Amino acid sequence: MSEPLKVGRSTVRWDAANKVAGAEKYAADYYPEDFLVIGIKRSPYAHARILNIDTSKAEEIPGVVAVLTHQEIKGSNRLGIMIKDQPILAEDKVRYIGDAVALVVAENKVILDQALAGIEVGYELLPPVFSLPDALAENSIKVHEERKDGNVLLAGKIEFGSVKEALLACVHKVEVELKLGCQEHACLETETGVAWLEEDGTLVITASTQSPFRDRLELAHAMGIAPERIRIMAPFLGGGFGRKDGITIQGYLALAAFHSHGRPVKIQLSREESTVTGTKRHATEISLTLGCDEKGQLSALCCTILMDTGAYASLGGEVLALAMEHAGGPYRIPNVIIDGKAVYTNHLPAGAFRGFGVPQVTAGIEQAIDKLAKAAGFDPLKFRLINAVKQGEKNSAGVVMTQSVGLTACLETVASCPEWKDRKSWINSAPPFTRRSVGMAAMHHAQGFGPVVPDNANAKIELDLQGCFVIYVGVVDMGQGNATTYLQMAGDILGQGFDRLTLVLPDTKKTLPSGSSSASRTTFTFGNALMGAAKILSERILDRAGLMLTFQTLGQVKKEELTLLPGRVHHLPTGHEVPLEKIAAMMDASERMAVSSYTCPTNLQTIPSGQNLSVHGYPHRVYSFGAQVVRLHIDTRTGEVTVDDVLTCIDAGRVINPILLEQQIEGAAAQGLGYALYEHFIISEGKVLTKDFSTYVLPTSLDIPPMRTITLALAEKDGPFGMKGAGEIGLVGVLPAVGNAIFEITGRRIKESPMNEERVLEALRQAGLECAR
Amino acid sequence: MSEPLKVGRSTVRWDAANKVAGAEKYAADYYPEDFLVIGIKRSPYAHARILNIDTSKAEEIPGVVAVLTHQEIKGSNRLGIMIKDQPILAEDKVRYIGDAVALVVAENKVILDQALAGIEVGYELLPPVFSLPDALAENSIKVHEERKDGNVLLAGKIEFGSVKEALLACVHKVEVELKLGCQEHACLETETGVAWLEEDGTLVITASTQSPFRDRLELAHAMGIAPERIRIMAPFLGGGFGRKDGITIQGYLALAAFHSHGRPVKIQLSREESTVTGTKRHATEISLTLGCDEKGQLSALCCTILMDTGAYASLGGEVLALAMEHAGGPYRIPNVIIDGKAVYTNHLPAGAFRGFGVPQVTAGIEQAIDKLAKAAGFDPLKFRLINAVKQGEKNSAGVVMTQSVGLTACLETVASCPEWKDRKSWINSAPPFTRRSVGMAAMHHAQGFGPVVPDNANAKIELDLQGCFVIYVGVVDMGQGNATTYLQMAGDILGQGFDRLTLVLPDTKKTLPSGSSSASRTTFTFGNALMGAAKILSERILDRAGLMLTFQTLGQVKKEELTLLPGRVHHLPTGHEVPLEKIAAMMDASERMAVSSYTCPTNLQTIPSGQNLSVHGYPHRVYSFGAQVVRLHIDTRTGEVTVDDVLTCIDAGRVINPILLEQQIEGAAAQGLGYALYEHFIISEGKVLTKDFSTYVLPTSLDIPPMRTITLALAEKDGPFGMKGAGEIGLVGVLPAVGNAIFEITGRRIKESPMNEERVLEALRQAGLECAR
Repeated sequence: MSEPLKVGRSTVRWDAANKVAGAEKYAADYYPEDFLVIGIKRSPYAHARILNIDTSKAEEIPGVVAVLTHQEIKGSNRLGIMIKDQPILAEDKVRYIGDAVALVVAENKVILDQALAGIEVGYELLPPVFSLPDALAENSIKVHEERKDGNVLLAGKIEFGSVKEALLACVHKVEVELKLGCQEHACLETETGVAWLEEDGTLVITASTQSPFRDRLELAHAMGIAPERIRIMAPFLGGGFGRKDGITIQGYLALAAFHSHGRPVKIQLSREESTVTGTKRHATEISLTLGCDEKGQLSALCCTILMDTGAYASLGGEVLALAMEHAGGPYRIPNVIIDGKAVYTNHLPAGAFRGFGVPQVTAGIEQAIDKLAKAAGFDPLKFRLINAVKQGEKNSAGVVMTQSVGLTACLETVASCPEWKDRKSWINSAPPFTRRSVGMAAMHHAQGFGPVVPDNANAKIELDLQGCFVIYVGVVDMGQGNATTYLQMAGDILGQGFDRLTLVLPDTKKTLPSGSSSASRTTFTFGNALMGAAKILSERILDRAGLMLTFQTLGQVKKEELTLLPGRVHHLPTGHEVPLEKIAAMMDASERMAVSSYTCPTNLQTIPSGQNLSVHGYPHRVYSFGAQVVRLHIDTRTGEVTVDDVLTCIDAGRVINPILLEQQIEGAAAQGLGYALYEHFIISEGKVLTKDFSTYVLPTSLDIPPMRTITLALAEKDGPFGMKGAGEIGLVGVLPAVGNAIFEITGRRIKESPMNEERVLEALRQAGLECAR
Repeated sequence: MSEPLKVGRSTVRWDAANKVAGAEKYAADYYPEDFLVIGIKRSPYAHARILNIDTSKAEEIPGVVAVLTHQEIKGSNRLGIMIKDQPILAEDKVRYIGDAVALVVAENKVILDQALAGIEVGYELLPPVFSLPDALAENSIKVHEERKDGNVLLAGKIEFGSVKEALLACVHKVEVELKLGCQEHACLETETGVAWLEEDGTLVITASTQSPFRDRLELAHAMGIAPERIRIMAPFLGGGFGRKDGITIQGYLALAAFHSHGRPVKIQLSREESTVTGTKRHATEISLTLGCDEKGQLSALCCTILMDTGAYASLGGEVLALAMEHAGGPYRIPNVIIDGKAVYTNHLPAGAFRGFGVPQVTAGIEQAIDKLAKAAGFDPLKFRLINAVKQGEKNSAGVVMTQSVGLTACLETVASCPEWKDRKSWINSAPPFTRRSVGMAAMHHAQGFGPVVPDNANAKIELDLQGCFVIYVGVVDMGQGNATTYLQMAGDILGQGFDRLTLVLPDTKKTLPSGSSSASRTTFTFGNALMGAAKILSERILDRAGLMLTFQTLGQVKKEELTLLPGRVHHLPTGHEVPLEKIAAMMDASERMAVSSYTCPTNLQTIPSGQNLSVHGYPHRVYSFGAQVVRLHIDTRTGEVTVDDVLTCIDAGRVINPILLEQQIEGAAAQGLGYALYEHFIISEGKVLTKDFSTYVLPTSLDIPPMRTITLALAEKDGPFGMKGAGEIGLVGVLPAVGNAIFEITGRRIKESPMNEERVLEALRQAGLECAR
């Protein structure tokens, strides 16, 4: 028998061998017998009224099973998690290039493409709106005519203190303006799934989704099906990063399954279709004014944030709210105005993406902080230390830090690392034609859904009749490895190794609702629920074993004398043992099944400003903290930036599995490097010009420098085993750290992202640092 | 829909209509298709060695399916809950008249009787031992040769203070000696059941038992079957009173089922067989010396208790321990010796019986108290008030009263009742040829299994897909009505009426282990487990309803805004409702099933003396208290005692269902009246002479006087809804109250029970009070 799993120990992923062997089935790997394929007819226009849809020619093509429009949809035909504004198939108009208009079910891909081409849609073109100023103009074209607030999806303001007066009184003051582009999630696995109807009418979907349980409700509403008649299964994901948080292709699957004459249906978006229609990180315009006193203490921040949420809401309001909550950084600032708007345009929709608005605003505040430190004559790290928020204090969004705050510890740790401590000698030994620089950023990232939407998970563990444990996980593993940490937690409490644990992946029929795999919440929230279930079950097992041993040994056996060991319960005073299968045989099925629910406590603080942000998650209660240092060099002949290494010091509470946490931090930092330096998502007149990875340049593994991650492992009292979420925070400091490093060399802020060669070369030129090639 | 059930309200029994209509199936009502009948060949001798058993003639009788002896038993062939000393079928010797020797399985009763008569057993007679002094004599005949302690099953001593010195110092001192006979439980339904083997080899038994889950373990041990291969179902009982606490006929059923060629088997003991072989209340000899100071404060008690436990242990040790714990009454006494022995004889076994040793010792201490009050010149009630133990004090067994103690309140309440307050005028208006008298007694009764054997119960509640609740009860309803109180408790928490609740009776396959129906523990222990399960389930339902409403109303729905009403969840702020079946449809089967375990806290006090009593239950933690007043008159011509009325004032914590509690108290008091006045169980040379109800005289409903029960409803903090157990206490004060009343008239203590006409007439004679007829 393998030794018991232990929390705190690096454990090879439970799913590693299966995935490496190609045996693990992703949603894309399902090919049900006799399946039909689905395709979507999409709008070529950014904004147009639909006059008619002629499906007759397409329907005549042999092998076409169905051609469907919104008229075949019985429900509201409206998707959306909070704001339901996105039709599965367009009704009266289309709002972006790629909007779905009709759906074809066909025997194969060749016939499908013929049929899609054969659908004739009559459009009346409408003037589109693309820029944020245009969208906000008084008489702007409306993306959604029925909305009262014009094109504003959400407008919020966090305000306290007296910013005007405080700014006037500041000894040092800086301004920063940034214009950050979209970022593409670039999941290895595009949106995909299969579906069919069971004989009893149940709609069964296996899809690549981060949110099977919520999808069920969202789909039920849009399709007019009772949610209990929908079963959704979510295998391991080939990447999610927020892209699959909510319905992507599930609506098409559902509609098609009702018109496929009982045959299964399958869809997988092509890379291009996925890139052109999938949600993106919000393109964002930020401007900040930040000031401090002569001692370097921050005294005022004025910040505006404009986010382009595209044609449909998706999670735009929530992204804006989280961005605003983080816009002032993890600092004490007594006078603050943060003004934010998420605005509809005829661009493709933006939505959730790892970091969820925080990468954009951290880019702003952390470059402003560096600039202000320089202006005030402080070392940038010490300047951050002076202002770092501590437990018990209010942060820059007015949120009282009731939970663990490890920012100061992270900064102090970084200060003692050679990457930072010895930066001057490192910079001075730069090779020819290069300039070296070291930049840093601090970061914080809130965890969970905030005060209104319950951040709840439900765990289920079964002791089977073989004496093994089945761990039912209702929250998706998108590849981050949380499934392995769940087995570690359960194994630790139940005293078992992998060989006694079976994992059941999310399935609305088998596992329990546990919310979406998002918001750095899964290990925290589901982990707490799982610990509850494991403790309930271990208590029951020990109770029953105690009774059985009492009758065997004719003396009292106290529960505290018993311990769970692999495959058995051991009685410490006598050495008697009872095999788990013997105990299981004496338990009722209901007792062998332990269920536990956990809902995160919420922040009960009343913050007078920003109250309309609360439904979108403001304020939070638990935050992770960190600091990142990037060492880089610029080729002064080409403007090419090469990152030499990335150091991340993180306070994410106690660490469940060190190697998995490191992978999360480093994976996030790599995505941050792409956001900072490489990934340039280009939209022109609503048309995406970077439709594939030949034009949208991602960093490859060869571009990723050595990385080092230091975890402080300070315990968070609410966290399971003391942990906090760490899924997103590793991304957010990279761009500003790179920006600060480039500034050190060029004395210029590059206001647009990514900071690619042209832009850096231009900065070098302006600084007179370009070397002739 | 019927209105929600409420704790504290008298509710007609859930099972009343079905029972009155004859539709409820008791164990005796099962007649499986093609069943065979079982009969037992029993010993005619009190003590004899078995030389041989010749079954050949019996086996030849057509219609005889099997004739079985101990040789067919694969296991230990030893029954017993703590001490396993009773064979299912005798091996080398028989120990009482009625001991089981062989078993016959036959087509019908006629053939069965022929076969039983045809079995020839060769015996070598051994000298029997019947009297306690004989059994305790140094060279006594041993009932169990292998025992080291001779015929002593258990000897214990509770001792503290300096009794000798204190007794010498007492201003007033009295002695009381009693010799109490056996009492027969006289369950309406004798021991009965059916059994068969399932195709998979599972042994299924439906039996009239108080302890299905423990029976399974006891039977597994004796029969050599894995306990998980045994399923025991316990329907409502037609009376138990302790008689069915443990294996009665289940061993016969099990053995027969393995030799019936797949056919079901059935047994029901005749009234005579039940009376002659079933356990009885222990015949007990008690002597007490009790003394007090001039202020009436008790200062010393010396008490010896001898109990005749008969041929086998049954629960004799536990009965002795509980008797010793209660022997000094609910009083503060600083110097105490309580010396007790339970002794084997060749009488039929004694065992558990409502009161469990406490009626015997209460008879002793409460007559001594009355006698001492008179000697010291105090009103007997005031004398008890002076000495009544209070919360925080030590009682007469040295047990610190950590939980609620309502004795003073009970006594004060009784003092203000006309039955007691106006007794003088009532006595003085006696009709001709009668003498009236009023007697009282105080009582206490411990609840539960004590410090060593876990007092544990496990409850299970299911929300079914119709939105109704299934309450799985693993603890037996012997007729006391606890099943109804469980439905009340669950209905109160879940907001439902009977029409939404289904009860599942004890079944080791369906319900969860909850210990025996005994020790005044069922409502307390199972009730606490059930409350846990009901709360878990109601939380889950409200959580799920909250999520569903959040998605319906697009705003946060807080759990505290929701309430469970019959058939639905109601949202108070908006009036939105969700039917329970809709919520059930959205829950996993594991979530619709709530399981909760409760183990009573134990008394952690270290009491230096009496430590070998701890495994038998000493000391307890929770006690109920009470006081009883009996008004009676004696016909001075015949000695006939007629009880005019019984007043019981009880502290059993908060009352769940007033009418059910009243029935429990009054039923117990009726049984106490039988014990005091009517029931005379006569054994001569080991032979029971009172084999049926024509010779063993029970009080009938015509003999039962008006009764009044006052419940104080003081809350006990550990109890479910604040209740404490009340199943036994109503019995224990009746005999001493009657004895005290008779003493008031005759000036004589009747030392033997029952206090029937001959004995009372003799006392009248001695007192010169007999009237010539």
